[in-house]
Amino acid sequence: MASAVINGGLFLAKRGVFGPAAESLAKQVDPADPIDEEPKSDSPDTGLPSDDNLDETNPMAEEIFSSWALFIVLFLLCSALWSSYYLQQKRIKAIHETVLSIFYGMVVGLIIRISPGHYIQDAVKFKSSYFFNILLPPIILNSGYELHQANFFRNIGSILTFAIPGTFISAMVLGIILYIYTKLGIESIGMSFVDALAVGATLSATDPVTILSIFNSYKVDPKLYTIIFGESLLNDAICIVMFETCEKFHGTSAEFSSFFEGIGMFLMTFTISTIIGLVVGILVALVLKHSHIRRYPQIETCLVLLFAYESYFFSNGCHMSGIVSLLFCGITMKHYAYYNMSRRTQIATKYIFQLLAQLSENFIFIYLGLSLFTEVELVFKPVLIIVTFISICISRWAAVFPLGRAINWFARTKGARRGLAPPAVQDEIPYNYQMMQFWAGLRGAVGVALAMGLQGESKSALLATVLVVVVLTVILFGGTTAGMLEMLNIKTGCVEENTSDDEFDIEAPRVPPPASTFYGKNPNGMISNKNFASASASHYTDNVPTRSRNPSQDDLMRDTEFEDHAQLPANTLASFPGPGSTSGNAAPPLQDQPSRSSSGLLSNILSVDEHAKWFTNFDENVLKPVLLDNLPAKQNDKK
Amino acid sequence: MASAVINGGLFLAKRGVFGPAAESLAKQVDPADPIDEEPKSDSPDTGLPSDDNLDETNPMAEEIFSSWALFIVLFLLCSALWSSYYLQQKRIKAIHETVLSIFYGMVVGLIIRISPGHYIQDAVKFKSSYFFNILLPPIILNSGYELHQANFFRNIGSILTFAIPGTFISAMVLGIILYIYTKLGIESIGMSFVDALAVGATLSATDPVTILSIFNSYKVDPKLYTIIFGESLLNDAICIVMFETCEKFHGTSAEFSSFFEGIGMFLMTFTISTIIGLVVGILVALVLKHSHIRRYPQIETCLVLLFAYESYFFSNGCHMSGIVSLLFCGITMKHYAYYNMSRRTQIATKYIFQLLAQLSENFIFIYLGLSLFTEVELVFKPVLIIVTFISICISRWAAVFPLGRAINWFARTKGARRGLAPPAVQDEIPYNYQMMQFWAGLRGAVGVALAMGLQGESKSALLATVLVVVVLTVILFGGTTAGMLEMLNIKTGCVEENTSDDEFDIEAPRVPPPASTFYGKNPNGMISNKNFASASASHYTDNVPTRSRNPSQDDLMRDTEFEDHAQLPANTLASFPGPGSTSGNAAPPLQDQPSRSSSGLLSNILSVDEHAKWFTNFDENVLKPVLLDNLPAKQNDKK
Repeated sequence: MASAVINGGLFLAKRGVFGPAAESLAKQVDPADPIDEEPKSDSPDTGLPSDDNLDETNPMAEEIFSSWALFIVLFLLCSALWSSYYLQQKRIKAIHETVLSIFYGMVVGLIIRISPGHYIQDAVKFKSSYFFNILLPPIILNSGYELHQANFFRNIGSILTFAIPGTFISAMVLGIILYIYTKLGIESIGMSFVDALAVGATLSATDPVTILSIFNSYKVDPKLYTIIFGESLLNDAICIVMFETCEKFHGTSAEFSSFFEGIGMFLMTFTISTIIGLVVGILVALVLKHSHIRRYPQIETCLVLLFAYESYFFSNGCHMSGIVSLLFCGITMKHYAYYNMSRRTQIATKYIFQLLAQLSENFIFIYLGLSLFTEVELVFKPVLIIVTFISICISRWAAVFPLGRAINWFARTKGARRGLAPPAVQDEIPYNYQMMQFWAGLRGAVGVALAMGLQGESKSALLATVLVVVVLTVILFGGTTAGMLEMLNIKTGCVEENTSDDEFDIEAPRVPPPASTFYGKNPNGMISNKNFASASASHYTDNVPTRSRNPSQDDLMRDTEFEDHAQLPANTLASFPGPGSTSGNAAPPLQDQPSRSSSGLLSNILSVDEHAKWFTNFDENVLKPVLLDNLPAKQNDKK
Repeated sequence: MASAVINGGLFLAKRGVFGPAAESLAKQVDPADPIDEEPKSDSPDTGLPSDDNLDETNPMAEEIFSSWALFIVLFLLCSALWSSYYLQQKRIKAIHETVLSIFYGMVVGLIIRISPGHYIQDAVKFKSSYFFNILLPPIILNSGYELHQANFFRNIGSILTFAIPGTFISAMVLGIILYIYTKLGIESIGMSFVDALAVGATLSATDPVTILSIFNSYKVDPKLYTIIFGESLLNDAICIVMFETCEKFHGTSAEFSSFFEGIGMFLMTFTISTIIGLVVGILVALVLKHSHIRRYPQIETCLVLLFAYESYFFSNGCHMSGIVSLLFCGITMKHYAYYNMSRRTQIATKYIFQLLAQLSENFIFIYLGLSLFTEVELVFKPVLIIVTFISICISRWAAVFPLGRAINWFARTKGARRGLAPPAVQDEIPYNYQMMQFWAGLRGAVGVALAMGLQGESKSALLATVLVVVVLTVILFGGTTAGMLEMLNIKTGCVEENTSDDEFDIEAPRVPPPASTFYGKNPNGMISNKNFASASASHYTDNVPTRSRNPSQDDLMRDTEFEDHAQLPANTLASFPGPGSTSGNAAPPLQDQPSRSSSGLLSNILSVDEHAKWFTNFDENVLKPVLLDNLPAKQNDKK
């Protein structure tokens, strides 16, 4: 294979067909490096005609170079995936695959950079439109589709608290520090306060991929997992909106009223985006219900995928947040439309969304590594980078710990209001969880993609800073997460009971789970080590969300398993029940037990618990009959 | 939803944020047309701040426009798929979905064209690199993966005959006619003979999608299906190589020796490309066999997909034919690697390849329709278009009928050599099949993509001509195929027995088919109307290819079912046997019966039958034990 590459490159170089680019391509490879397989050879033997007639803008020449660029990129993806397999297979936890992905990207990026060719360098350069239009949507869609809905909505209060005020605090603190630093005049960087806030927003988007894959492999307590996951999903959207708001004020003098204008705009964006996602999800459910399209499952699968993407691009096109729309579209589709699909489409959508998400996730880190060297306009300022890195730690600290304490305080207050003495109310988010959440503040590609849109004369320096800081956080925090988990004594080895639809039940006929799994399901998904092996990657996801739980089992689990947060909630959100249930046999919500899981800042204000009950009833009695295709009867037929 | 769009558009227009482009976007929609949902409104109510600070090159503005472009494209895809469903559901055969796709594309293309905006027009313009790097590979990969290997290799002789000399004759005839026409001086188009040949090559690539979807819905005789399918797959590759060869001679005076040089180059390209595909396919099989990667099926699925794509880009990068490599990589993967995959990966790869291929197929026609109006450099010359359209009919005629007769003559000669009297030897390809093959000569997007690479001053006129002729052939030939099938009295309603792995056996455990299905399988896949309903779209494909057949069943089928080509082959290629077979119980090849199916021009010369036997033995005794993961034992375990 290698010799064929060499001949191919020789072929181009010898004939001089593609102008300087081709010749530089043939020259650009360091022979000592085995990763980059670009052509280099001097041996003359192609047997092909030589002529000098094609110019550089020839589409054929571009074709060749884009083929090589894609080949290199896919080769890197293969390497990353293979490394991932190898690390898992050998149970190596010291190095994480994302760190390796960045490393591979950097090595190949360096080779491409030091070589004189420019076409491939241009082709593999980080483009924010590729990121937002191609790489990000599959990850968000899969997150929504695979979301453990019960866990997510049980912790929605904490998630929103960390995602909205948390990100806001983080961006403000970071912006203020950077503004003060630049005003000190140590570096020749001038920026207005709004620009500093924009950089703050850029560096406040945390990345879910690395930390969650580590959590998955350690099977960390689903509560912590869900909070970090939800926060990192939503704060991407929030950072984007904040960033865009700041960019709109770029060049104008920021007034104090702009502050509230910005907040109002953000809330409107968030609400409308959520509505777009819900509407599209419900639309898909209705289309599937009221048509015979399930007889043509290939078309059905395509349509489900296309509709989901439509919500994203529509929302982005309307200047709303595509991420929020797509997330809620995915959640709604899984909650309603999924049960109207043919079996084939159910499986196909799951597999396809997973595959696309996995490829995107792996590729994003390679892309980051590549762009460290292939981005030409970077100006690295070491002091600024160090200051920024320290600042993001400070800003993360300023966001996580006060809000964690606030959530705990609200939980305690609420417990007291319900007549429980303070000692009976455990912390909603104990200190070690807060610490872990601080540690989980890796920055990701969203920040880099946003930084591409920075304006002003110091853009190159800021972009370089963001890029380096992102890579540093992934390497430093990502590389030490496993150690921190142990140091902080965080509960690991928690296994979910219901992991249906993964590879092991493809072959089994589709029988609805017995009622006991609906009612007897452990609220925190902790089933001590049984079923461990079969949990696989979809460990934290479910298709048959928890509906309502058996208090006695809860108590059992509480007594035997929970040490430091023993009295976890028992009657939290029973919304988003499984499809097998009908409104008739739903267990009544246990109203007189203390409820604290959904007791985050916002949820308290809005008294989410009440809404949850109202929504559960509405869902059972109105939405499901309207949206679902008479599912309980269908399941009985299948029996 | 519509009002949200309107608000979004208003939002841009009112603030004038994105310069002229945004304003034109808001103006550009014809309100009478419901398809295009681009924003247009005058009602003022956004509640958002207005400022004029962002410039046109802002990535955020590009983001918005690319979102709209993608939204429109996905919306068209949804419409096309929905039409496809509707036509199938209502059993409407008069209009074909591809014609509708082109029509939708044209309508939206026209709207985009007459509106003053330029960004969306640029975004949806036909780009040959998108076509070759994104749209084409999934179709080719899925074709290789879903190929009915037994049928394909049984008819390889005829396929290669039509694909290689056929395409060559077609391109030559078309090139000569066009050259003579331009020399007449009726239009102000000057081109050299080599350029005319390049155009001829461009318009000799036939498109499989439309015709084969009609054949699928009519369940046409698999032999005709396979020949047309194989021809259209391979002649794309051949046209590309011919085109590139011609472009290399562009501007030079063509010598007679160039002719042989071109042929030599083509054969080398074809051989090396095939080898690349085979090597990658075998590599995948070996990697899957010798690793534990099937324990991580998500990674496994990604790697299989990536490796297949690597073969395509590697081959293209080496100036070889990516199409040929990918096709043979798909075939090899299905023949060996498929049986080393985990069950989940088997299903996931099938679904994913199918989904990607379906989306690409639908999109290509939309893209063609769009580009009729969004391509700015087109110069339409009606007379040239008519002349070209007539010429492609002549050139197709000149390719199909003489070669069909040649294949029949060789078959008869071979029959006579084996001691059969001429009346006993039926035509290999009867006249009605030849006529259908002539009719199946629709031109597709490969031609348009190649025409983008044309050089010289008459490029705009030629590109316009190619585009219009392609659309015309799809509408005229594609629209009348169903009628032609009936007029020509071609066998329809043929159903394959083995259609495993489609949606109906997801739920069944994976049990190998009983031996009788291997040995008793009808060579032409004709099982009279039983099992009709369950055949579905994967009708012509198989997972457990025919291995060797029972002569008595063959005779039975021959007596009862075949009318006009009653004595079809009985001991043709028994290559590519199913995996469940072991070398021990293989039925011996029936050497003394007449063999004619694999008796095309090339196959005769190479005496494919002998090779087939040799290869089958080699495959059974060497390749399978080396490449497969001890499958027969594994299947027994599963029992």
